[in-house]
Amino acid sequence: MRTSAIDIEKKMNPLLESERKKNSFDVEEMTNVLDGGKIATERRRFIEKLAFTDVELWGPDVRHMTREELFLEMTRRHVEAIKKCKKYNLTDAVDVTNFQRSVLNTYVTGLSLHQLVFVPMLKLQSSEEQLRDWLPLVDSFKMIGCYAQTELGHGTYIRGIETSATYDPQTEEFILNSPSISSIKWWIGGLGKTANYALILAQLYTDDVNRGVHAFLVQIRDHNHMPMQGITLGDIGPKLGLNSVDNGFLKLSHVRIPRNNMLMRYSKVLKDGTFVAPSNTRLLYGGMLQARIDLSDDAIYVICLSITVVIRYSCVRLQCSMQNDQAECQIVSYQTQQNKLFPILSSAYAYRLAFPAINQWLTSATNMVDQGDVSDLGEAHALSSAMKVLLTTKSANFVETCRLSCGGHGYLDGSSLPVFYRNIVATVTAEGEVSVLLLQTARFLVKTFVKLQQSSNMQLSPFTSYLLNQSRARNEPKKLSSFNLESLVDAYQYRSYRLLSAVCERMNTLNAKERANKFYVWNACSVDLVHSSLAHIECVIATVLVQQLSGNSNNNVMTSSSPSPSCLSCSSDVRRVLTNLCRLYLLNGLFESSADLLQFSYLDPDQVTSMKLEMYNLYDVIRPDVVSLVDAMDFDDRHLKSVLGTYCGHVYEELYQWAQKSKLNETQVHPSFHKYVKPTRELFVSKM
Amino acid sequence: MRTSAIDIEKKMNPLLESERKKNSFDVEEMTNVLDGGKIATERRRFIEKLAFTDVELWGPDVRHMTREELFLEMTRRHVEAIKKCKKYNLTDAVDVTNFQRSVLNTYVTGLSLHQLVFVPMLKLQSSEEQLRDWLPLVDSFKMIGCYAQTELGHGTYIRGIETSATYDPQTEEFILNSPSISSIKWWIGGLGKTANYALILAQLYTDDVNRGVHAFLVQIRDHNHMPMQGITLGDIGPKLGLNSVDNGFLKLSHVRIPRNNMLMRYSKVLKDGTFVAPSNTRLLYGGMLQARIDLSDDAIYVICLSITVVIRYSCVRLQCSMQNDQAECQIVSYQTQQNKLFPILSSAYAYRLAFPAINQWLTSATNMVDQGDVSDLGEAHALSSAMKVLLTTKSANFVETCRLSCGGHGYLDGSSLPVFYRNIVATVTAEGEVSVLLLQTARFLVKTFVKLQQSSNMQLSPFTSYLLNQSRARNEPKKLSSFNLESLVDAYQYRSYRLLSAVCERMNTLNAKERANKFYVWNACSVDLVHSSLAHIECVIATVLVQQLSGNSNNNVMTSSSPSPSCLSCSSDVRRVLTNLCRLYLLNGLFESSADLLQFSYLDPDQVTSMKLEMYNLYDVIRPDVVSLVDAMDFDDRHLKSVLGTYCGHVYEELYQWAQKSKLNETQVHPSFHKYVKPTRELFVSKM
Ligand SMILES: Cc1cc2nc3c(=O)[nH]c(=O)nc-3n(C[C@H](O)[C@H](O)[C@H](O)COP(=O)(O)OP(=O)(O)OC[C@H]3O[C@@H](n4cnc5c(N)ncnc54)[C@H](O)[C@@H]3O)c2cc1C
Ligand SMILES: Cc1cc2nc3c(=O)[nH]c(=O)nc-3n(C[C@H](O)[C@H](O)[C@H](O)COP(=O)(O)OP(=O)(O)OC[C@H]3O[C@@H](n4cnc5c(N)ncnc54)[C@H](O)[C@@H]3O)c2cc1C
Repeated sequence: MRTSAIDIEKKMNPLLESERKKNSFDVEEMTNVLDGGKIATERRRFIEKLAFTDVELWGPDVRHMTREELFLEMTRRHVEAIKKCKKYNLTDAVDVTNFQRSVLNTYVTGLSLHQLVFVPMLKLQSSEEQLRDWLPLVDSFKMIGCYAQTELGHGTYIRGIETSATYDPQTEEFILNSPSISSIKWWIGGLGKTANYALILAQLYTDDVNRGVHAFLVQIRDHNHMPMQGITLGDIGPKLGLNSVDNGFLKLSHVRIPRNNMLMRYSKVLKDGTFVAPSNTRLLYGGMLQARIDLSDDAIYVICLSITVVIRYSCVRLQCSMQNDQAECQIVSYQTQQNKLFPILSSAYAYRLAFPAINQWLTSATNMVDQGDVSDLGEAHALSSAMKVLLTTKSANFVETCRLSCGGHGYLDGSSLPVFYRNIVATVTAEGEVSVLLLQTARFLVKTFVKLQQSSNMQLSPFTSYLLNQSRARNEPKKLSSFNLESLVDAYQYRSYRLLSAVCERMNTLNAKERANKFYVWNACSVDLVHSSLAHIECVIATVLVQQLSGNSNNNVMTSSSPSPSCLSCSSDVRRVLTNLCRLYLLNGLFESSADLLQFSYLDPDQVTSMKLEMYNLYDVIRPDVVSLVDAMDFDDRHLKSVLGTYCGHVYEELYQWAQKSKLNETQVHPSFHKYVKPTRELFVSKM
Repeated sequence: MRTSAIDIEKKMNPLLESERKKNSFDVEEMTNVLDGGKIATERRRFIEKLAFTDVELWGPDVRHMTREELFLEMTRRHVEAIKKCKKYNLTDAVDVTNFQRSVLNTYVTGLSLHQLVFVPMLKLQSSEEQLRDWLPLVDSFKMIGCYAQTELGHGTYIRGIETSATYDPQTEEFILNSPSISSIKWWIGGLGKTANYALILAQLYTDDVNRGVHAFLVQIRDHNHMPMQGITLGDIGPKLGLNSVDNGFLKLSHVRIPRNNMLMRYSKVLKDGTFVAPSNTRLLYGGMLQARIDLSDDAIYVICLSITVVIRYSCVRLQCSMQNDQAECQIVSYQTQQNKLFPILSSAYAYRLAFPAINQWLTSATNMVDQGDVSDLGEAHALSSAMKVLLTTKSANFVETCRLSCGGHGYLDGSSLPVFYRNIVATVTAEGEVSVLLLQTARFLVKTFVKLQQSSNMQLSPFTSYLLNQSRARNEPKKLSSFNLESLVDAYQYRSYRLLSAVCERMNTLNAKERANKFYVWNACSVDLVHSSLAHIECVIATVLVQQLSGNSNNNVMTSSSPSPSCLSCSSDVRRVLTNLCRLYLLNGLFESSADLLQFSYLDPDQVTSMKLEMYNLYDVIRPDVVSLVDAMDFDDRHLKSVLGTYCGHVYEELYQWAQKSKLNETQVHPSFHKYVKPTRELFVSKM
């Protein structure tokens, strides 16, 4: 168990101390389960210690800084972190993530985009030869790149990008140009100030023919970091969050780059201007997949941070008394507070348990792409899109719920919750907007459903096979039979199947009416399609979760038939606690979608009431364990940086200390008094 | 119709121009309806013009400022606005609000708390004599006050406040003291830097006996604005939003104030220390009522700002094409986009129409209190609490939905939507937290319900009489009969009644079991109680809305039996459009609560589907009018301050111009390059 980092001498708040005596399971064991094993926990702690004990990685509290100071300080820390990763030879992605999270918390910088998007995309789309030239530059920090796809006028619709790259066979160069205001590159992380190279997506023209969107590596700043000729660039201004990142704009005025700077792993332009098309355009999607997995992982991370803060605070915050004139109550005892927080706690655990298995399947699909096999790519794209949407939107909503559940104090930056929100909510939009991604998932689902109608023996992935099972049973009206895990999962599967089948039916009916106009029909069904995609990803998570928990992760969901080690080997105490959390998670999800299930008569009205009462009941069961459940997430105070969420829980002292640092307190009398208030006073008095 | 203020020369974006030709009603007439008449529109425009044409009220774009600069600039503008209100003799509350909104937008300052809370509270609780002494100081700007109720340890639970005010009959003084860290006053708006007086709530002690919480006027800063002796104070630090306000902390160390500085309208302490209790403690609640009405009004205002921005943007943003390779689509044409925005648009209209009538009733209840009649106060408190909760939470959620519906560009501060969110979401917590307020409403509802069981002939207010009607019909199972306005309202009333009756029943059952422990029972039912309170306020709004629209505002809801002038006299075109919006609003609300109605078998499964299809159908009907519907809200570009929402709609030009002002663009090469990136590069290269 961790002790408080900020003030190791401080004694624990007795309210937290007594909470920590109530738990019904071994916290360290739970930590191991969450990490995926004892060794993983130890490794993580080792990496975090490297970061926390290194003074060069420390820095002042950025929440009191201006945007310019924040940008400068976070860039400093990130550069330092990269140096240290090199020094300690940290190359494993999990290690690097754990290290950087301990240095940067939930902040990212221009360099993050270099690491997380630019380099992977470069690797994915460049030829071996090109990489031989470029990777050493990346390695020596001479090439810091950004990924420049979005323009003022186009984000979602990549095919609509206007930037042009016209091949000039005379000089064997491409001429890159921004033909209009709306074609200015925009939102590009790291472009504003940090990067000296950009991967620019542009319409390729050879022989006056448009060859579609391709990627070009363009040097945008010289060795003195001044913009190259023909290039206008800068930062796009302050944002709701992520102000540590220099999202930038870029205007290209007939900028010439060598032919070799088109990324040529798949498409090619030969010296004479001959265009060689790629064997399969879908190969280009691979890079987005990893980005979506990363964002999903961040989303879960931020949920865990937030729930840790608010659960601890809810145990030390006393407010009102339940009985007249009796001692005040911990706010965690109020059912309304439990109803806000315990479902989030159970979701955090559910996502932590289910995500690695889904992730594993997606990663293997990505690896197959690298080897040229795109058979799973369609589903991987659909699944990762919906997962990214679900987890980022849940994360943003949960963080705000956690913040609001701290009452007034949650609104202070010192609680960290506003910081978490401002940063994480960006990921709801970035790398693919919610409805747009869900409609792509829907396209895959509808296609699968149509195939299913045609052949009942088709080969389905582990995540969609439920559609087949449900469709086989479609003629028997079904009801929820009990609240055990398997029945609850069946409810998720039934709901998803029925929603998909209903929207497909409606599309058929409309198609019959409108015949020609399938676009109209698609649009007229799009709200229902989005609903169906969400039901599908919720169903996938529920299914995987229960399989993980029961150790029954057979071929149906996991790529390997070996049971998941982390859960199977756990003690009965831990299993009991996890099972309760899992039931709460599943019940809560079904309760929230009870309108669907009532509509399908899968639930009786009475069952909805029992479901609710069973949730309230589970709140009581979970209550004594909640502090230990967030302790098991094993955050250091330096991860949380929250006056409300420290391990020791001296929240009022922390709040008071934090406020002293407010810049407005630098002078006792603020200039506004002498400048504006006093003169007005004199004016008004003299008039009286 | 307004033209763009920022650039009057600019031609309108043709996409908006053609939208503005499609409308099916007279925009100016609609504006009059929203304002409550032609004269009100003219007056508002006159006031706004006063503000917009006065250079002293102009200022640079605060979104590029540091917190200190923001605070300084907004204080300047607010002081200036106060001077101008005095100059133009603006005293009517609506005038002042319209004037200040044109100067401060959605920002508030320390002076706002002086105006909106301190002065009203002072007036409410001081004796005539005291006011004779104090109001001239307020008037001459010599007294700038803040309202200091909340402490670090207590916000919701006022009775738990620790600050003490002990009467010393020897010197005829009160001694104010903060006995602990948790007793430090905290969150007090305007206290940090602006105010020189504070209304401090403290536990009154006379003769060593605690007399409960009372208000004391304390001078906290001297004429040089330095803290008075015994007083430690300052700003509490940066927050998610409202950083233009100096929320402050205050520690009192045995501070002595004259006896006369206790506010003595109701309670009194005589010279010798004799305590005279107030005739009715509920008299003290009056002040909170107006504050909640004000916050509700702000919430609606921000919804209107946000929906204006996003509807205009959705008509000029083209993204993707519906048909293969056809022209790109306005995003407003996508059903998913309509499903995000049109219910918000309809809510904005619904709230604008219903709020004045509810407000009017609440105001008359407040006025009755001033005359010592507290008979309506209980319901006024319950109603204003639930209304404040509903409107502020809806406002915060809607603003974020609007922001997210702008895709990436919504995340930029230049869109204004992040500013709206950060500022409005504070009101969800301030002046009473969500669950706490809803539980207070529930207490009133349960009490009313119990009385209703006892006597079926009881006198009910216009807002609760539906409970009686529904309870009379309780034995006949009911169904939704049609989608006309009256039937839809019945559905709201039925739902609210059934939820309340269900929770009361559950409480009875539990009480029978647990007998003694009614606190346990209350808590065990509190999630359901909160749900019931929300259903009640939704039902009240639905009822009032339809009565307003049908002109059928008889005694049942309005205090006067005269029909509402604004709606009755409108043309059939305007009425048709309003009726469609109203139906959409009602259908959407019922659809969102369809789980309840299905559970009560009030809706058939098929009806839920029809409801949904009817909503989609209304989207088509409303579509041609949407730009005109936001135009009718009649905002000037200087209200919106949004690059995405200008009247002319040249969004990409506006975005590009706005970005140029980013502080990070002040130098071409950012210091981070020379300080951190370059040295690292040299380090890495030398190592290779
Ligand atoms: C913080 C941040 C960082 C970013 N970093 C980068 C970066 O480094 N590099 C880069 O290239 N880009 C970057 N972006 C851009 C980002 O990828 C896009 O903003 C994102 O993909 C959303 O696209 P959009 O902005 O065009 O939204 P839009 O497509 O304009 O969305 C606006 C609305 O239109 C709707 N809509 C659009 N198309 C359809 C459709 N076909 N059907 C139904 N509805 C539709 C959406 O649902 C949404 O409600 C970043 C963005 C953000 C916010
Ligand atoms: C921006 C801002 C400005 C403010 N300005 C002022 C000001 O000028 N002057 C001033 O005096 N104060 C001010 N406040 C304080 C404000 O009034 C309180 O923050 C607010 O009333 C909420 O109370 P709290 O912070 O104690 O929340 P808490 O009561 O601590 O709420 C935390 C959680 O506990 C739950 N909870 C608490 N009690 C109960 C209960 N009995 N039953 C069920 N659940 C419960 C809540 O639902 C919530 O989820 C301001 C606050 C903010 C955020």
